[in-house]
Parts: sequence; structure tokens; C-alpha cells
Amino acid sequence: MKTQQNMEIVLAEHPKGVPTENTFKSSAIDMPILKDGEVLLKSLYVSVDPGMRGFMDKGEDDAAGVKFKIGKPITSRTVAQVIESKSGNFKKGTIVHGRLAWQKYQTSSTDALEKVDPSLAPISTAVGLLGIPGLAAYFGIINVGLLKKGETVVVSGAAGAVGSIAVQIAKIKGCKVIGIAGSEAKIAYLENELGIDQGINYQKTEDMESAIKATCPEGVDVFFDNVGGELFDAVLANINRKARLVICGQISEYNSDHPPTGPRPAHQLIKKSARIEGFVAFDFMDEFDFAKKQLAEWYNTGQLKYKENLLEGFEKIPSAFIGLFSGENIGKQMVKVADEMWL
Amino acid sequence: MKTQQNMEIVLAEHPKGVPTENTFKSSAIDMPILKDGEVLLKSLYVSVDPGMRGFMDKGEDDAAGVKFKIGKPITSRTVAQVIESKSGNFKKGTIVHGRLAWQKYQTSSTDALEKVDPSLAPISTAVGLLGIPGLAAYFGIINVGLLKKGETVVVSGAAGAVGSIAVQIAKIKGCKVIGIAGSEAKIAYLENELGIDQGINYQKTEDMESAIKATCPEGVDVFFDNVGGELFDAVLANINRKARLVICGQISEYNSDHPPTGPRPAHQLIKKSARIEGFVAFDFMDEFDFAKKQLAEWYNTGQLKYKENLLEGFEKIPSAFIGLFSGENIGKQMVKVADEMWL
Repeated sequence: MKTQQNMEIVLAEHPKGVPTENTFKSSAIDMPILKDGEVLLKSLYVSVDPGMRGFMDKGEDDAAGVKFKIGKPITSRTVAQVIESKSGNFKKGTIVHGRLAWQKYQTSSTDALEKVDPSLAPISTAVGLLGIPGLAAYFGIINVGLLKKGETVVVSGAAGAVGSIAVQIAKIKGCKVIGIAGSEAKIAYLENELGIDQGINYQKTEDMESAIKATCPEGVDVFFDNVGGELFDAVLANINRKARLVICGQISEYNSDHPPTGPRPAHQLIKKSARIEGFVAFDFMDEFDFAKKQLAEWYNTGQLKYKENLLEGFEKIPSAFIGLFSGENIGKQMVKVADEMWL
Repeated sequence: MKTQQNMEIVLAEHPKGVPTENTFKSSAIDMPILKDGEVLLKSLYVSVDPGMRGFMDKGEDDAAGVKFKIGKPITSRTVAQVIESKSGNFKKGTIVHGRLAWQKYQTSSTDALEKVDPSLAPISTAVGLLGIPGLAAYFGIINVGLLKKGETVVVSGAAGAVGSIAVQIAKIKGCKVIGIAGSEAKIAYLENELGIDQGINYQKTEDMESAIKATCPEGVDVFFDNVGGELFDAVLANINRKARLVICGQISEYNSDHPPTGPRPAHQLIKKSARIEGFVAFDFMDEFDFAKKQLAEWYNTGQLKYKENLLEGFEKIPSAFIGLFSGENIGKQMVKVADEMWL
């Protein structure tokens, strides 16, 4: 195995604001040595997600998770293949996913890994449609948003990994769906390919509050918010009685040094008997298998479209991650590192 | 009836900030003429509530309610007695409550009135313990807060009409209860008479966030917030996973001209999978009778104490209302206008 070249990408410095190429450092490393009970993994698909930004700051590990350390490899959700095994449960060739290091090859104990069921959908979906992004969309809309047929649902970051699935679930459930995104290409994708009722390009809209009022004259029942900030305020002003505002991610806030301020929502929440609720997909771990089967069924029957924005090559991982904050990507940002081997 | 003196109190001007005596104008008026289907009412107990402040501003009526008009009488929850009746359903002597004008005598159609059941508790409680304040405490803690035995509950405005009932319901339900209030007298009342676990006097506390951390090292599960503003931020920083922040009233915000700003809560809500929820008692109208019986039972068995801060005399109504914003009142602020007659 010594002839294969191994590579890793580590955190070079704590980013200030939006990460840059200087945030990361790539270098050649030795192949790891496999121990008893472990497997040797080859990375196939690496997922990059905006939520990772929070772990790049200096500071203590906290309840939200473990911070990346200077000089240590970044980790993210990755689909990998077992190419050597010293574990009885994971034989050579098995496709797995887990939170793995940004390394071409790595060893891992098997308790941090989950087997991918290739019969459900393409294996890359294990960290996208059938991974945390898809599960966040599913539980956010259904378990937290508690959406009902005929309601009006607004989704921000609607063309992103989570939003693009959330809008489609809301359509499948019989709702009117308005998607907010930041480019004409995204709006066209949402309206023409994903079938939402109307898109709003916030980059071209001066008064978002009025724009939401115009598209939702009947008021907003569920807001699935991937963005936060002033977009949140604009939707909050248009909610119906008993509205549910679901906070999934706050891409507009990940890069700010100080907690942002804004108008306090309390008065509007009382006036409308409404709620704001934050969640992470792991709140609903007991229902993961059920949700994955449902998402796969919608995908395989053509009711739910899933688009990957795929860069190729291990060295592209940092730019794929940085690109998340440019507002240009449509669908799930992924990096294909290697092809699956037929062993 | 012409010999009886009638009086009314009208809105004289829209208050800027905290209302003053100039906000109101009191004058003698004629006795009203009773029409068929109506009753002639004598006001007995007038309730003043901080939420009324919102209806004193200039502006259009909106979903939150009908604004008071210059020169027209203020209305508030009032216990009154039928002293003449041209309605078959409400005979002379009946005790009723409803949103009535600040007038000693007034006529009313009967569909806006509810009969008071004097067997439950003293009749003044119909607009206090068994009225909107008590029902708000009950539904806020139980239906919105979803509190469970053994949890840690923090209540702001804890010595007020709603808060003083909320803390006691949380104790009855087996929770650890921390009350926040603004004077040593209130803290003593909460700790010694109402039996909460610990009080925090925010007037004497520089760092509320640390004070809450010190009293709730195990974290806060339910926050029943009558105050808002920076107190809210201090509690939010100390919540547990799956915490419920219940927004009942925002006395610190009623008097401000502009919607106040503050740190956005979204990030913390995601980190803790927590929710902020606004409500009004009327959201649970179907359960009013059940809740009233439960509150009356706790009161009559001595499990729940109920304190009225009673001023006497019709002319005291404005100062009773203004006093709500001074931070000094303990318990439910009421004005006794007249004794019940034995007819």
C-alpha cells in the first residue's frame, strides 16, 4: 500500500469571517497502519456543509460540538469504501458513511461508521438526500413545522442542500410554497424544475417584507429558515396566527464575530400566538430509518428531485466549502474524491 | 335613577411612554337609558392590566385588538352587578364580568357578558385568579410551557398578577422555581409566602446571566416571561436542550415607541433545539371552564395563594393603571368601585 499517495487537509488558521484558501493546508501524508478491529477506508464523496463554519473558530469545545484544531484534519460527512478490514462486521468493499477526516485514506474504528444501503439510492446520497441535509429538511418541515395541507410555507435558502428538499416536501404535502434565493438561476431552478409556486430573488428585492406580503396575501403559516437575519424579520412581519418559524441553519450568521442584533420578535409572537423553534436532525434519530425510506421512495418515484453540485478531486474540497458562502451554489455541494471500486 | 351620580373616565391623550394622570379625564355623565334586551350594570371591581397600554397608542385597530379613542371611555375587565334588566337571561342581582367601560353605571347587551359563579371563589377573582391573568398563567405554564415534574422553571415579573400564579402552578407541578422581580419586598413575598425556591432581585443584580447560572446550575427548562428585553437574553443564555421560552407579556416593551432590538436568538435556539412561543389565554378558550375549576380548587384548598392589590374608589382607576409600570405592585392590581348589593 506504500505506493499509493495519501493526502490530508488540515485547519491552517482560524478564519476571520468567510473562510479563504489560507484557512486550509493540504499535504502528503503516510498511509495509515491498520489495527485489529479497524477498517482502512478510501474516501469517495466528501460533503461540505455551512454548519461546519462554527467549528472553525477558536475556543473551547461546547455542547454544539468539537472545534477543529490548528494542524489537525478537518472532518465532515463522507462516503467511503472499506478497502481492507480487520473487523468481522465490515468486510472489504463495504460502502460506509460517517464523520471522517479530509484524508484520501484513513483507518477508523467501526462504531463511528454506518453502512450505506446501495439499494435505496445512489451511494453519494448517504451524506445528502438521505443524510443530514435531507433529514433536516424532512424533520424541520414535518416534525417541527407541523405543516398541514393547504398551508402557506416560505423557505429561505431554498435552492441549497436543505432548502431544495424542504420546498419539495412541502409541495408533496399539498402546501403553497414560496422559495427565497439569491440569483435568477436559482429562482428559475426552483420554479421550473422543483415546481414551487413562486420564487423571490432577495438580491433584486428592495423591500422583502412587501414582497412576501405580495406573494402570500393569505399570510405565512410555516417559515423554514436557513438564512436568518433580515430575511427572518421580513417573514415574521407576515405570519398568520399559530405560525411556526423553524430555524434550521443561519448561514448569514455563521461568519459573524459577534451575535447579531435585530428587532426582538416577542411582541409579534404574542400577537400571533406563534413560535420560533430551533432544531437539528439528530433530535429525531429514532425516526431516521423511516425518514430515509420515505425520502428514497419520493426520489425513486420522481416526486422529489435531488441535485448535487459535484466538484471532482480531493484538492477541490476547500474551494467547495468556501463556495457555500458565495450564494451561488444550487443543490448539495459535494466533492467526488474517487470512484467506488468493484472488489 | 336620575339622582344617582354616574361618572366615566375617557382617554384624554395618547400617552408618550409611560401613561400619566394627563392620559385620562374623568367627568360626570348622565345615567344611561336601558333598552329592551339589555341590562343596567353597576361596576364593582375594575381590573387594570399592563396589556391595555398597547391599545392607548394612536393608530388603526389591528388583529391585536381595538384601540382606545380620544374622548371615549377606556374599557377593561370588570366585575359588575345587574341592577335593572330588560333581558330574560340576566335577572336583577346577577353578578357578571366582561370588558366594560370605565363608568360607574352602564347598559350592556348580554352577549358580551359572562355570569360569575360565586360558589367557585370570591367574585373579584372573576377578572383575576379565574380571569385572564390566572388563565394566562395556567395555560402558559401547562399548555405552552409543557412543564414536567422535576424541571427548572424561571418566571419573570414573578410577583405580578400572572407571574405570582405561574410560580405557584409550577411548584404544585413539582418543579424547581426561580422568580425574578424588582424589589426586596417582592422577593420576600415570593420566597416566604409563595414558597418559590429562590428569588432574584434584578434591580440589585448587575449580571443577570451569571445570577441565573448560579441559581440554576442544572440549566433552565421552562422560562415564563412577563418582561422581555435583557432579562430574556440572560435566561436564554442558560437554557437546557429542548427548553420552552413562553412569552406571555412584555411589560418592558409596552411603553416603547419603536420595536426594541436585541441579540438574535436563532443561534442559541438551534444549539439547544429550543423554542420561543407567544400565546394569549384565548388560544385555549375551549379549556377555560376546566382551568377555572382547577385554579379555584387549588385556591380553596390553600395550595395556591392569591393576593389582590386593591385600591378603593372609582376615581383611583387611572392611578392603579399607572402604578402597574412603577415596578412596585405585588399581586393583582384591582380597583373596588362599589359593594355588591343584596337584592
